[in-house]
Amino acid sequence: MASSAGRVLVYGGKGALGSAIVNHFKSNNWWVASIDLIPNEDAHSNIVITKTDSWTEQEQEVLKAVEGSLGDEKVDAVYCVAGGWAGGNAASSALVKNSDAMWKQSVWSSVIAANISSKWLKENGILALTGAKAALEGTPGMMGYGLAKAAVHQLVKSLAAGDSGIPSGAVVTAILPVTLDTPMNRKFMSNADMTKWTPLEFVADLFYKWATKAERPENGSLLQLITDERKTSVEPAS
Amino acid sequence: MASSAGRVLVYGGKGALGSAIVNHFKSNNWWVASIDLIPNEDAHSNIVITKTDSWTEQEQEVLKAVEGSLGDEKVDAVYCVAGGWAGGNAASSALVKNSDAMWKQSVWSSVIAANISSKWLKENGILALTGAKAALEGTPGMMGYGLAKAAVHQLVKSLAAGDSGIPSGAVVTAILPVTLDTPMNRKFMSNADMTKWTPLEFVADLFYKWATKAERPENGSLLQLITDERKTSVEPAS
Repeated sequence: MASSAGRVLVYGGKGALGSAIVNHFKSNNWWVASIDLIPNEDAHSNIVITKTDSWTEQEQEVLKAVEGSLGDEKVDAVYCVAGGWAGGNAASSALVKNSDAMWKQSVWSSVIAANISSKWLKENGILALTGAKAALEGTPGMMGYGLAKAAVHQLVKSLAAGDSGIPSGAVVTAILPVTLDTPMNRKFMSNADMTKWTPLEFVADLFYKWATKAERPENGSLLQLITDERKTSVEPAS
Repeated sequence: MASSAGRVLVYGGKGALGSAIVNHFKSNNWWVASIDLIPNEDAHSNIVITKTDSWTEQEQEVLKAVEGSLGDEKVDAVYCVAGGWAGGNAASSALVKNSDAMWKQSVWSSVIAANISSKWLKENGILALTGAKAALEGTPGMMGYGLAKAAVHQLVKSLAAGDSGIPSGAVVTAILPVTLDTPMNRKFMSNADMTKWTPLEFVADLFYKWATKAERPENGSLLQLITDERKTSVEPAS
C-alpha cells in the first residue's frame, strides 16, 4: 500500500460499474478494495459478503473484514455502486419480494458504506452513493426500486448535514443515473436508444477526479447523469 | 358487517395512534379491522402478525388473514400508522440495527398496506400512510428513521401515479407528523413543549372525515401536521 497514489473502497466492486471503477483506479496506481458477493480478482483486497439474510450480520462481517484489510490506514474515497433493478406496481405479486431485494442491494450497502466511512474515510475524503433520477418522482411501475433509491437520496442529505458522523471536510454525494451502459442492459434492452446511456468509463473517471479532489461536487448534492449522443452531463437535482 | 356504516383497516391498530383510530371509527358505527403484533380487543377483526423476520412471510401471513377476514368484501379506507423511532448517526454502533428496525416498522407495513389496498380497497377509497416532516430534509441524528420515512414519502408518489395498481378514484396520501401526543412521548420527553404535539384524536377525526369522503386531500400529497398551542393545521409539503 505504501507506494500507491491513494486508496479507495468500492462497495459493489464486482458489478459492471464497480469493475470499471476498480480498473480505472488501479490503472492510476491506486490501491483498491472491493466489497461484493464475489471477489474481483483485479482488486488489491477483497471483502467477500456471505451474510445476505441479516443486515446486522452483513454489517459485522464487512466491518470485521475492512478492519482486517485496512487496520489503522484510511481511504481517500468510498464508492457504493451496489444495486439492481426490479419492477412491479402495488398489485404485483412480486411487490414485496422485489422491494426486499432492492432494499438489500441499495440501502443495506449504502448504510454500511456510511458506517465504514465514519471509521475509515480520511478527513476531506469523498463518499458517493448511487441513487436514481427516476426516484426523484413517483415510480409506479417499479415501486420497490423507487422507494429504496429515495431512501438513499435522503441518506445523502443526512450524511452531508452537521454531526452526521462523517469525517470533517468530507463530501457526500450520490450519482443519479438514468440508464448505465452495462452488458446486462444491452442484453435486456437491446432495442433501446443506447446513445442516451451513460458509459461506465464516464462514471469511473468522474469518481477518480473526485478522489483526487478535482471537480468536487457540492456536499449533499444529488447528481443526475444525463447522457445524450453518448455525452454525459452532471446536473444537480434542485 | 352488514349494519356498519363503513369498513376500515388499520395497520398498526394496537399502537397509541392506531388505537385512537380504531376507537373513533368504532364509535361512529364503522367495522374496524386491526393489523398488529398484538390484538386490539376493541376491533371487530384482528390480524395478528407473527412473522417479523421475513418481509415476504409477513406479507403472506397478512394477506391470508385479510382474505379470511374480508373475503370478497372491500373496505372504504386503509390506514397504516405502524412505525417507531430510533436515533443514531453514521458513526453509531446501532446505525444498522436501528435502520433495520425503522425499515421493518415503517416500510414493510406501508408496502404491505399498498398491496392490500390494490386488492381490498374500494374504488374512490382512501389509503393513508405515515411519513415524517423531519424526513423532508436530512436527519443526521436519526438516519435510519429518516431514510425509512423518505421511502414512504416516495411510495406515496408512486401509488398516486397512473397504473399504480391502486383502485380507480382512490386517494393516496401520507400524514407527516412532527411529534404525536402519545403516552410514550409524554414519558420520554416530559420536559418538551407538549402544546406543539399533535393530539391523536385530531388524526383519528381527520382520517374519519377522509373515509366519509369529506375534506379529502389531493392524491399524492404529503401532509405536514403542524401543531401550535394544541391547534393542528394540515399543510401539504411542496
